[in-house]
Order: sequence, then C-alpha cells, then structure tokens
Amino acid sequence: MRVAVVGTDHGHIIEITRTLAKAGAEIAVIVPTEDAIGPWLASKNPDAKVASSLDEALDLGVDLVATAAIPGDRAEIGLTAMRAGVDVVTDKPGATSLEQLDALRAAHAETGRNYTVVFSERLGNPAMVTAQRLVDEGRIGTVVHAVGLGPHTLNLANRPQWFFDPSRYGGILVDIGSHQVDQFLAFTGSTDGEVVSSAIRPHAEHAGVEVLGEMLLGSDRATGYARVDYLTPAGLGAWGDVRFTAVGTAGYVEARYVDQTVFVVDGDRKETIECQDHAVTWAADLLVGRPLDQEHVFTVTRICLEAQAGARRRDPIPLSV
Amino acid sequence: MRVAVVGTDHGHIIEITRTLAKAGAEIAVIVPTEDAIGPWLASKNPDAKVASSLDEALDLGVDLVATAAIPGDRAEIGLTAMRAGVDVVTDKPGATSLEQLDALRAAHAETGRNYTVVFSERLGNPAMVTAQRLVDEGRIGTVVHAVGLGPHTLNLANRPQWFFDPSRYGGILVDIGSHQVDQFLAFTGSTDGEVVSSAIRPHAEHAGVEVLGEMLLGSDRATGYARVDYLTPAGLGAWGDVRFTAVGTAGYVEARYVDQTVFVVDGDRKETIECQDHAVTWAADLLVGRPLDQEHVFTVTRICLEAQAGARRRDPIPLSV
Repeated sequence: MRVAVVGTDHGHIIEITRTLAKAGAEIAVIVPTEDAIGPWLASKNPDAKVASSLDEALDLGVDLVATAAIPGDRAEIGLTAMRAGVDVVTDKPGATSLEQLDALRAAHAETGRNYTVVFSERLGNPAMVTAQRLVDEGRIGTVVHAVGLGPHTLNLANRPQWFFDPSRYGGILVDIGSHQVDQFLAFTGSTDGEVVSSAIRPHAEHAGVEVLGEMLLGSDRATGYARVDYLTPAGLGAWGDVRFTAVGTAGYVEARYVDQTVFVVDGDRKETIECQDHAVTWAADLLVGRPLDQEHVFTVTRICLEAQAGARRRDPIPLSV
Repeated sequence: MRVAVVGTDHGHIIEITRTLAKAGAEIAVIVPTEDAIGPWLASKNPDAKVASSLDEALDLGVDLVATAAIPGDRAEIGLTAMRAGVDVVTDKPGATSLEQLDALRAAHAETGRNYTVVFSERLGNPAMVTAQRLVDEGRIGTVVHAVGLGPHTLNLANRPQWFFDPSRYGGILVDIGSHQVDQFLAFTGSTDGEVVSSAIRPHAEHAGVEVLGEMLLGSDRATGYARVDYLTPAGLGAWGDVRFTAVGTAGYVEARYVDQTVFVVDGDRKETIECQDHAVTWAADLLVGRPLDQEHVFTVTRICLEAQAGARRRDPIPLSV
C-alpha cells in the first residue's frame, strides 16, 4: 500500500506515518505544509518523493492519503482523495463543521473508500487498546459509564497561528474532545449518542484559545463525562495525564496514559497491567482490510461538532502564559 | 463537651463517635435506633448512658447531639437539638427536602447553635485533608475544575429497609452525592454553585435503589463533575475507589481514598504523598470553636437537593443482585 502524507501541520503526523510504515505500508510521497515537521519527516523517509500538492501526490499513484493538515483543511483533503479513489487516514478531528462532515459522509458513500480518523488516545495508546480488549471480553460486565480526562500542555510559545483561531481548529471539544467522544462510544458499545451538556472556557488573554472544555454525553445504554484542557503543568514531564475509566455492572477499568498501565477490578480481584509493550493495531488492521467502523467515525465527528456548537461559553481562565 | 449520640442507623456514626471522643469529647449518652450498630456502640462506650429518645438524652444534659439516624429523620433531630440550645453534628445528608433545609437554616439563625454535617469523604479522609491543604497553600494556583468520583459497594443483602426508599434516604445525589458537592465548593473556594445537569439510574429490580447518579456543577469560578454509584466490585477489597481531582491554573492534585495517597503536580515537579498517618481535624476544630463554615453546610445541602429534584431519570441498570 503506497501512502501519500499530505499535510504535516500537527505533530501527530509523525506517529501516524511511523505506525503505517511499521504495519507494512510504503511511505511513497510527502507533501509538507509547514516548515518544520514536514521537512523533518521527509528526511526520515528518504525513499519518499516530496511533492507540493495533493494533486501532485495523487498523480504519483498512491492508495492512501494520510493527513494531519490544519484541522479545518483536512476534510477537503479527504474529499479529494476519496473522489480520486484513494483511502484516507486523518488525524482527529477530520472535520470542523457539519457541512464538512456531510460532504465526507457523502463522498464515502459514493466512492466506497475507507475514511479513518485516528483517535490516537484510544487507537494509538497500548493501555487503551488493552482496556478495550478487557471490556470486549466481558471482564467488567455491561459498561454503564465512562469518564475521560484529556489534559494537554498549553505550550503557547510553540503553537502555530491556527491554534489561536477556533474557526481553523474547530474548538477544543472538536479538536481534542473528539478523543473522549470516540472513547465513550467505543467502550460503551454505543452506536449513537447525544450531548447532554457542554461548556468551554477560553484563555483570558487569547480569546481564540479554548483552555478547558467539558461535556456530558448519553446514549441508549450509558452516560459519560469528558473534560479536556490545556492545563498540564510542566512538572508532569509529559504532555498530559490522560485517564479513562469505564464502569460496568461487574467491575471497572482505568487506563492511564502517562505510565501506560491498566487497572482493572472485577468481582474476584484487582489487577494492574503494564502495557508499554502491548501492540497498537489500527494500521495493521487497516492494511488487511479491517478499517475502523465507518459509521462510528462519522458519529463521533457529529457529536463533537454538536458539543462544540452548543457549548456554554463560560468565563475566561486567568493564565499568565 | 458532653455528646449524645442519637440515631445509629448508618455505620458512619461509629466513625463520628470515635472522632469526637478522640478529639476530647465525652460520649455521655447513646440512643440506639436499630438493633445492631447502636447496641454495639453502647458496648464500646460503657461510660455512656443508654437512653430511648432524643428528649431523654437532652434531659441528661448534653452540649452536642451527634446523629446518623435514617437520613430523612436527621433534620428533626437537628432542629429539636438546636432549639434545646445544643449543637449538632450529623452524618451527611442532614436534610432530604428543601422544607427540612429551610427549617434547619431558620433554627440555626434563631438559636446560634452550630450545625455541622460531616462530609466524611473530605473531612474524615486524610488524603483529602492533605489535598485541601496543598490547594489552600496555592500549590496548584486558582482551581478551575474538580472531578469527584464516589463509587460504593451495593451490598443489598445487608441494607436496611430505608435504603430501598428514596423518600427516606433522599436519593443518591443527596445521600452520597453530598460528598462531591461539598468537595466541589470547598476545593474551588466557591461560596455558591448551580446544578448544570444531573441524572440518576435506578436498579432494574429495586426501583427505589438508585445505582448511579451524576451531576455537572458550576460556580462563578469553576465547574465540576461528580459521579456516585453502587457499582464497586468485590475484587476491590474496599467499599469504594473514591477519587477526587482538582485542576488549577498552576497544577493539579488527585486524592485517592483506597491507598490514602495524594498525587500533586505543579510547575516544577510531581509528588506522591502518603497520607495514612495525616491528621483529621474536624472534631478537634469544632471542640475549640472553629466549626465548619455554616453557610457552606447549607449551600451544599441545597445544591444536592436541587440536583436530585432536577435529575433526569434514565433507564434502570441491569444488575443481578
């Protein structure tokens, strides 16, 4: 499978590219869309051609376009790729408006191409992969609740312009909250969900930077809560102490990102599982024809967009940086 | 200070009595209101007189009435005690209706007696006491968010009749959710708060048993989320994996009940603090004339009652026990 990497604005493209290559894909083309990540990625993939546009990349003959362009630009890349008969792998979020989502849905339906959004906090996180396996095996019974906490480092000095403009990144509940919506649906086995309540708090000195977002979610079988923020302090030594907890009728499971552990408790015992060496399989699954459930991808996207659009805008958070 | 223990329906009275005695109070009278805890408590306090009613206890000359009667009966005990010129220490919740709350507020205002609700997950929990000290010292900056998770063991076979009747225990968001409302206000420094959204899920086979409750809270400075449930599996070996996390502008702190640890991260470092031997001070503070902030007690109670009254009743949770 020949892959064109088109859009390198978010560092997630490094992990996406690496994971695809490790699964056996050929990184055939790279289209850098900024000055740092793209050129570096090209230097690490010397066999890949460097191209200057999506069209040029498609002309070189590829099977899949992978993108971590500016979030607002990803849908157009995905649409063009699918219409050219090519599968798509995009960093989350894949869309920043309902119009983009509708167009992506339509293009997927028309072309039959795979459209994958890499919800990396679940799909690329060995602790979460392990936690989900335990849940799928029935270890904690029927899941009735989920809490996802997604703190991130603010790091304003190194953020690109688009980080300051919600019209380009989609708002915090779309940009990073999409992870938690994905987790809620996946762990509760819900095929649909609703936003019960949502809110955001912007940065006091940068109105376009949303520092905290939260949402209460519901489905026909479970409820869930998610908070995302840019309040990770430097002392953590990691970008975010991401936690996910699923509570079931027969136990619960907690996945921790920072130390890659899963803590699971059932009717008989409690157990801490070290997951550092556990496999991440989304790319390998994709390459053998088991893509992420397509309806799930679109449903997650819709819920995030609804959460963001309906969010109560609360007082700015006073931050000195 | 001579204490009358009046109402022994909830096991919390054991810890309340022990803590008062340890702080120097004299356990002078015990009025058992059921057949197990009360007689046992009397046997452990052989110097205390056993009386058969609140009036009889008051006639024996006491300074404080402590109660863990059936939740719906606590307000009447508190009212009578205050009107008799006696301070009150009650297990949470102190009231199960707004009428009871109004009457307690009025009696407190008229008599000037102290009315303490022991929100034990904060006040009686060394890890929480330590976490709050760190927050009060400014270690994590201005607190903007709190998450409180309060799982409990269902243990239906050993539950009294009133556990099956929300009109007597007040509903899950009042009975056990009061802890998390207390924590939210205390850690965010909020003097008031609102319920943004709340929901409960009853037991599929016991409609009066509310198995899960959740609420989204807001104040002028922070938001918070709380979930309480009776889904703790036997394998934990403890009644509940209670967690509390406060996120501030300069760091965050997590208090864990099960192993009595606090994890705190600030701009410089991360630290795990073992709190098993840290002091619990609410009773000693009370005895030297530093009672719990009275307005806080009433505000917590009001918010819980509002959360419960406004809760969306979701589908029952299928449980086999």
